[in-house]
Amino acid sequence: MIAEIICVGDELVLGEVLNTNAQFLSKELLSLGIDCKKHTIVKDKLNDIKYAINDACKTSNIIILTGGLGPTDDDITMQAIASTFDAYLSLNQDALKDIENFFQARNIKMPVSNKKQALIPNGATILKNPIGTAPGILWKIKENTFILSFPGIPYEMIEMWHKSAKNYLKNISSKNIIIKNLKHFGTPEAKIGEKIKDLMEKDNPQVAPYVENGTIRIRISSHNESKEKAEALLKNTEKAILNKTLEYFYGYDNDTLESVVGDLLKKYNLTLSTAESCTGGLISSKLTDISGSSEYIKLNLVTYSNEAKINMLNVEEQTLIKHGAVSPETAEEMAKGVQKLSGCAIGLGITGIAGPTGGTTEKPVGLVYIGICDDKKINIHKVQLNSKLPRFKIKALACNYALNYLRLFLTKK
Amino acid sequence: MIAEIICVGDELVLGEVLNTNAQFLSKELLSLGIDCKKHTIVKDKLNDIKYAINDACKTSNIIILTGGLGPTDDDITMQAIASTFDAYLSLNQDALKDIENFFQARNIKMPVSNKKQALIPNGATILKNPIGTAPGILWKIKENTFILSFPGIPYEMIEMWHKSAKNYLKNISSKNIIIKNLKHFGTPEAKIGEKIKDLMEKDNPQVAPYVENGTIRIRISSHNESKEKAEALLKNTEKAILNKTLEYFYGYDNDTLESVVGDLLKKYNLTLSTAESCTGGLISSKLTDISGSSEYIKLNLVTYSNEAKINMLNVEEQTLIKHGAVSPETAEEMAKGVQKLSGCAIGLGITGIAGPTGGTTEKPVGLVYIGICDDKKINIHKVQLNSKLPRFKIKALACNYALNYLRLFLTKK
Repeated sequence: MIAEIICVGDELVLGEVLNTNAQFLSKELLSLGIDCKKHTIVKDKLNDIKYAINDACKTSNIIILTGGLGPTDDDITMQAIASTFDAYLSLNQDALKDIENFFQARNIKMPVSNKKQALIPNGATILKNPIGTAPGILWKIKENTFILSFPGIPYEMIEMWHKSAKNYLKNISSKNIIIKNLKHFGTPEAKIGEKIKDLMEKDNPQVAPYVENGTIRIRISSHNESKEKAEALLKNTEKAILNKTLEYFYGYDNDTLESVVGDLLKKYNLTLSTAESCTGGLISSKLTDISGSSEYIKLNLVTYSNEAKINMLNVEEQTLIKHGAVSPETAEEMAKGVQKLSGCAIGLGITGIAGPTGGTTEKPVGLVYIGICDDKKINIHKVQLNSKLPRFKIKALACNYALNYLRLFLTKK
Repeated sequence: MIAEIICVGDELVLGEVLNTNAQFLSKELLSLGIDCKKHTIVKDKLNDIKYAINDACKTSNIIILTGGLGPTDDDITMQAIASTFDAYLSLNQDALKDIENFFQARNIKMPVSNKKQALIPNGATILKNPIGTAPGILWKIKENTFILSFPGIPYEMIEMWHKSAKNYLKNISSKNIIIKNLKHFGTPEAKIGEKIKDLMEKDNPQVAPYVENGTIRIRISSHNESKEKAEALLKNTEKAILNKTLEYFYGYDNDTLESVVGDLLKKYNLTLSTAESCTGGLISSKLTDISGSSEYIKLNLVTYSNEAKINMLNVEEQTLIKHGAVSPETAEEMAKGVQKLSGCAIGLGITGIAGPTGGTTEKPVGLVYIGICDDKKINIHKVQLNSKLPRFKIKALACNYALNYLRLFLTKK
């Protein structure tokens, strides 16, 4: 089964609204073993919608539309569907009852315009909308070709998907698709790409790397008529990849550097305290994005000024004068200082130049020093990020480098 | 001029990544007076990309592609463009130099695979990528038909758009569209919607509200053959809106709560120190996203544990025992404590329940107390956010509420 998603709405094509519906539906389809081929986003124009539907029918069995089911005259998705398949719209009494009940329940007189939402292509079944007025439709056009239509309002669409459409499509899907992501940090995408070049050339399982904030996620997608076969295929490919990338591998799917660090801290029953300068609290915020992080996070500091570094962390004034605030020496004293101040098992200090100003030839924007210590040892790391990156990006990357060095520090324990 | 956007990438079609590029480009095109007809999102498959390009050429003059320019073998957008227009790919020496320099600057040996990114369709001009390795292209296929290709990484694409593509397209566009965003905080979207209902019904200027993390952005878009007329139209609508919404208005277009707070602190030459619990450093991170924030940010704390609140901020143990860590009393003592500790003019304390666990019937998830003080006065605010929201969302909303109360505190000075 191959699906295509068509999202209808001027607000989407003009960029006024971010299209989250297509992403939601693609994920859901994949979880049912239905492969999505394409997303098409068109305006509320009859011919554009019809063209998209006809085009989708050429290659896909399942065409899912969202949007254009409102009560106003510019909402014409049902018209477009009907006219594409030479059907006519007729008033669906069940749908009308639901809409009337919707307003009755709210003691509101039903606006005349809402009656339009009960006009359904003859032959189609309605998908009830438990939280809004616009019903959707499910329509088997011919053997192995299905048209589904949902309102554009995400929470209505999502509710209707889970209540009805999902199970229907689950039953007509045969293929088993299994997906697993392997997450890596600390090496360029190209390097990883070269290592797994041979695997990336295969069609099944499909192997593809993606980068975000320095994390390289390798997605393995395998499919087979038999779920067991698909799983076996995936397992072998996973092994083959990790054989070559293990040194950079940190987790699967929803694992993040902060969640992995959190798991390690809990595993070894350790507490952590951070002293941030250039990242300004981002590391602390990421660490506390994890529910239950209060087990290992007690006190974090953002020591932005030299005074704060001296007064709070006992960084030597001489260190700042001799080596500067952005130096391995300062990073070391920040880590030790915050560990002592907090009484935590592990201290992390980070100092750098987030830019866009403040860089020099010796110390360009993007230069970052990270110190990590416990009672026994301290590691200092130097990172030079791309000086041209925007400030928020340098913060995000510096944060991930720090979390990854922290992960390695904890792994080696 | 009519444009179409084609986004290439399995990760988009499979729903693994939210497509923000199409929205950004549509908005930008609109601001240049270029109407976007359609978005098409396809996988990294040669024939799918070629089909989309050919299809777009039937109706549009400007075809913008994003994605598929990476160094790995699955990135084939350049190939697809070249083969669609019967061109061949040739090694572009400028592009190669840029890529080599990118790695030299980082003292990294250029991976062989990156050389592929310098292969450009003959006839196309390269769009330099100042922050990544993949150059884009700008290619005038024939009179009034232009192909543009950008990397899929949003911040690279955005940088390249502003640096080169935008001005080029501005020159070939005729229509004058002017867009202005009015940003508001502290009232529900529906309330704002009611206030400006009449304005929202007009076609030109077009008025539309959008919400994100509690911020309500009202977008005004006006067009006219004459730039002056378009500006006058917009100005009148802006006045009419602010007449009804001024109490919630905080800024325009790229203004953020943290940038507005930063401007006020600089204006009054004040310093600020924060003590965060439930937001875990997010407020500090947001404040330091602003370049030059070191002028007013010196020391911020994340006091996650009761001990940290007591030891660092001198919160009374009795306060925590009697009223709990999430209470107006604790928020007040945190604000006063961090102001005293840091010696800053203004102190902010925030404590709450980010969830998903830790809520009770008296103190549900999403309950947040914010204290803001200077030497003269202290304000305490209670916020109850939707308990069902995910943890990161509650953190983001609590952060924005705190920044907005801070803004009001500073405005009233």
